[in-house]
Amino acid sequence: METPILLTNTLSVGQVADAVVQWSVERNGDIGVTTSTVNPVVGECNDGYLNDIQGRHVHLQHVSAALHSACDGPVEEGSVGAGTGMSAFGFKGGVGTASRQLPVSLGAYTVGVLLVANFGRCRDLMVLGVPVGRELPSPHETVSRDGSVMVVVATDAPLAPHQLSRIARRAVHGLARTGSVATHGSGDFVLAFSTTNRIAHQPSALTRCLELVEDNGPVLNGLFYAVIESTEEAVYNALLRAETMEGRDGHVTEALPIAALVELLRQYGRLS
Amino acid sequence: METPILLTNTLSVGQVADAVVQWSVERNGDIGVTTSTVNPVVGECNDGYLNDIQGRHVHLQHVSAALHSACDGPVEEGSVGAGTGMSAFGFKGGVGTASRQLPVSLGAYTVGVLLVANFGRCRDLMVLGVPVGRELPSPHETVSRDGSVMVVVATDAPLAPHQLSRIARRAVHGLARTGSVATHGSGDFVLAFSTTNRIAHQPSALTRCLELVEDNGPVLNGLFYAVIESTEEAVYNALLRAETMEGRDGHVTEALPIAALVELLRQYGRLS
Amino acid sequence: METPILLTNTLSVGQVADAVVQWSVERNGDIGVTTSTVNPVVGECNDGYLNDIQGRHVHLQHVSAALHSACDGPVEEGSVGAGTGMSAFGFKGGVGTASRQLPVSLGAYTVGVLLVANFGRCRDLMVLGVPVGRELPSPHETVSRDGSVMVVVATDAPLAPHQLSRIARRAVHGLARTGSVATHGSGDFVLAFSTTNRIAHQPSALTRCLELVEDNGPVLNGLFYAVIESTEEAVYNALLRAETMEGRDGHVTEALPIAALVELLRQYGRLS
Amino acid sequence: METPILLTNTLSVGQVADAVVQWSVERNGDIGVTTSTVNPVVGECNDGYLNDIQGRHVHLQHVSAALHSACDGPVEEGSVGAGTGMSAFGFKGGVGTASRQLPVSLGAYTVGVLLVANFGRCRDLMVLGVPVGRELPSPHETVSRDGSVMVVVATDAPLAPHQLSRIARRAVHGLARTGSVATHGSGDFVLAFSTTNRIAHQPSALTRCLELVEDNGPVLNGLFYAVIESTEEAVYNALLRAETMEGRDGHVTEALPIAALVELLRQYGRLS
Repeated sequence: METPILLTNTLSVGQVADAVVQWSVERNGDIGVTTSTVNPVVGECNDGYLNDIQGRHVHLQHVSAALHSACDGPVEEGSVGAGTGMSAFGFKGGVGTASRQLPVSLGAYTVGVLLVANFGRCRDLMVLGVPVGRELPSPHETVSRDGSVMVVVATDAPLAPHQLSRIARRAVHGLARTGSVATHGSGDFVLAFSTTNRIAHQPSALTRCLELVEDNGPVLNGLFYAVIESTEEAVYNALLRAETMEGRDGHVTEALPIAALVELLRQYGRLS
Repeated sequence: METPILLTNTLSVGQVADAVVQWSVERNGDIGVTTSTVNPVVGECNDGYLNDIQGRHVHLQHVSAALHSACDGPVEEGSVGAGTGMSAFGFKGGVGTASRQLPVSLGAYTVGVLLVANFGRCRDLMVLGVPVGRELPSPHETVSRDGSVMVVVATDAPLAPHQLSRIARRAVHGLARTGSVATHGSGDFVLAFSTTNRIAHQPSALTRCLELVEDNGPVLNGLFYAVIESTEEAVYNALLRAETMEGRDGHVTEALPIAALVELLRQYGRLS
Repeated sequence: METPILLTNTLSVGQVADAVVQWSVERNGDIGVTTSTVNPVVGECNDGYLNDIQGRHVHLQHVSAALHSACDGPVEEGSVGAGTGMSAFGFKGGVGTASRQLPVSLGAYTVGVLLVANFGRCRDLMVLGVPVGRELPSPHETVSRDGSVMVVVATDAPLAPHQLSRIARRAVHGLARTGSVATHGSGDFVLAFSTTNRIAHQPSALTRCLELVEDNGPVLNGLFYAVIESTEEAVYNALLRAETMEGRDGHVTEALPIAALVELLRQYGRLS
Repeated sequence: METPILLTNTLSVGQVADAVVQWSVERNGDIGVTTSTVNPVVGECNDGYLNDIQGRHVHLQHVSAALHSACDGPVEEGSVGAGTGMSAFGFKGGVGTASRQLPVSLGAYTVGVLLVANFGRCRDLMVLGVPVGRELPSPHETVSRDGSVMVVVATDAPLAPHQLSRIARRAVHGLARTGSVATHGSGDFVLAFSTTNRIAHQPSALTRCLELVEDNGPVLNGLFYAVIESTEEAVYNALLRAETMEGRDGHVTEALPIAALVELLRQYGRLS
């Protein structure tokens, strides 16, 4: 991975990818001249119900602004960024994030998940095992579309590629617990990366020594749990932080009604 | 797939595969003489906590008996066949099965799932979204092992290989809802096949006309739901049909206490 | 595959993809409004040695012109289109194409391969088994870069996706015979499609009847040979049709000297 | 990989796998009792033209003898072991091996390839680029079968799994240069492993420090070349070391006539 990860709507991928290239060559004039090229990483979901997606309104200046303002700290959730026009389970969706830190006995590693929730049929929504979608039907059930989800998993655990591939697959377990069916037409993807052991572009030696998580040790299972739990929670956060939105052509997607949800969780013994 | 699918314990795979070859050549003397060879399909889980697995007690006569007695109709569940020594979520596991039939508007196709449940940590067990594993701890939590699950998905829907691959992957969603984490060391697999459109060994023409489910039609999603629900239910059936067993060296795995489970489902609003 | 396949240079992917979206929505105003979105297919190689690749000079009007002028009949080869700035085996590369038609006894199906050759180290070039790269070193050996190749395989044989995947993989055998090593950093890819049995966007029935090549019949092997031979020949055509080019910053890549090549093939008994 | 790699004929896989389990539990009584189980690695090709393959004549004592006599040093080639009944390109095939050592500047790593050649149609055989199969047809062309090849790649280069996967794929390039088409029905496989950085069954820490080849350094390309060249040469060695054999039912496969081959290589300018 040579660039930041950008998430956007389906028809804006081209413009966003081009903007990342522009941003990259501005920072490294050697690209494609005296060194190799750059391949941007851009994910997408279809927000065409609320968004004028044909208009491709994400331009260079928006990408630049996003890249310049990227920083540490809390992440905005709900109807922001790529999440602006997204819907999930018949309700307003968007960006959600959650994380877990393993105990010190497992290395105290952190796993963070950020996703754009744009998937799910209303009647399938489950929250903490409670069949919310059946009890609390969306007023927009008839317009619910199948959609997709983009999941990014980041960790500081020192993982090799085959281990990252394994933790990426565990996000599916978290999605499944919220009601995901990965319907036909969905282009769900999960991208996992480690912030440790960055790969040198021009290494100074033939080999390098690096610390890696033991394949047969206990850390991998700890990371599996962390990814599953974070993914499940991030979907809930995407729903809980999103607000009702009116989009193009008078299309409206309502936010998940939180008070009703809380009441339902009580009724099913999940809140006291 | 050229042979029946056999499921057994890990160390018996060799003997069972050899028995399938024996059974095959008895039925078709041309194998390896005037026609091609045969590749048996044998799945396995590790039942070494209850079973003297080193002993490899599944012999030719047991495989022959299983193949001769295979028939239509209800399937035995729980501690039978390959399920005999298996454990799941700290309780006695084994064979489970469930099926769904799509509505006539979706072709009335049937999906059947048969699995051998030998996976799951006690505290992770969820039944219909209820955290059973936390409320009803297994007395054998300390001996629970990570284990695996073998899932076989059969359907009469006329599917092409790329479609079968897609429905196989949906079994993971069903497993996830029961508490599966697919822990490290697990060798979970899912095998899906269609009973329609059998592939000719020696076709009489270059091409053939066959009926297949439309990729962009509504059947695939119907099958996805059917696989997910059947897989989830089959895990519950495996647990509910298994009985407490004492195995090698005094090892005991208790059955899931059904009365306590029912009480818990009531308490969490899932049974009235 | 919902759009034409576009091939370009690495840094132009974004702009070209956006242009395909533009072209698509102009032709189908329903995209993203009342129907689903569109995902363009754009391939790339790095032509940065000859091309001012940072400049991203492929604009909407070039993509539009290419799409409007696309037609049946002979294909231009060598330094045209995406092939303009490409190099292979230290010589000038570019677009190459070749095809085979199976005999009537195998259905008379056609396989066509079009590729952009931008791969290979000079000393590795083999032509019809003759070690051309060792006998006829490129004057630009020192600047040869590893590069990549994009291969598109088209056929009118009625193939299912799993069969298309198999014929795509056979292109590697053809590349290997020309000296390909698929070096680190190469992003070689092969895309195979059938022009028969187009997939309906909105099918009118749950299933459809279609004619498909028999898996165990003789056609698949015939197609394997056709792909391998066409790919090998298309690489030669890319080299033979390309002309010496001077690119950015005075960089020059010479064409493969054909007279010397012919002499070499005679010397090695491949031409009389 | 927890066991030695065993290669045999298709129908003997069950018995050989069972023998490896027997051998393993004799050496480690904990298997399946106090520790996890063992999954043997057994490869196969179909030698049914020469061998009474239904008879499954490879028994426990043969596997034990092979495992006990395994040692360092030169490897027997041709019609030995799993290679005994194999045929390739219409001639007698069998076991072939070859290796390369990288220069000191690339770490002086060694790559060794051992394969069982049981693939190829006579007219496709190429040796050093010379169309031997067309010039020197096998007397058994009519009985040539498509067959398969098993390739094992071993190296002392310290590679991670994703790197091993990459070098395994390069064996295809070597096979392609000998005339492989990977015909339908072939079950070609390549297994690559590193003898460096063995994975601990019960690691004593959460992570470990290990030396690995740099992804963007020059070693990987060196290994790619080594695998391709070794695989190509190993196929030739399998053919050159095999002797004419009469098998079951009077079936005969002739050895590749070496004098005629040498003459042909001269004629095509590959030997002086």
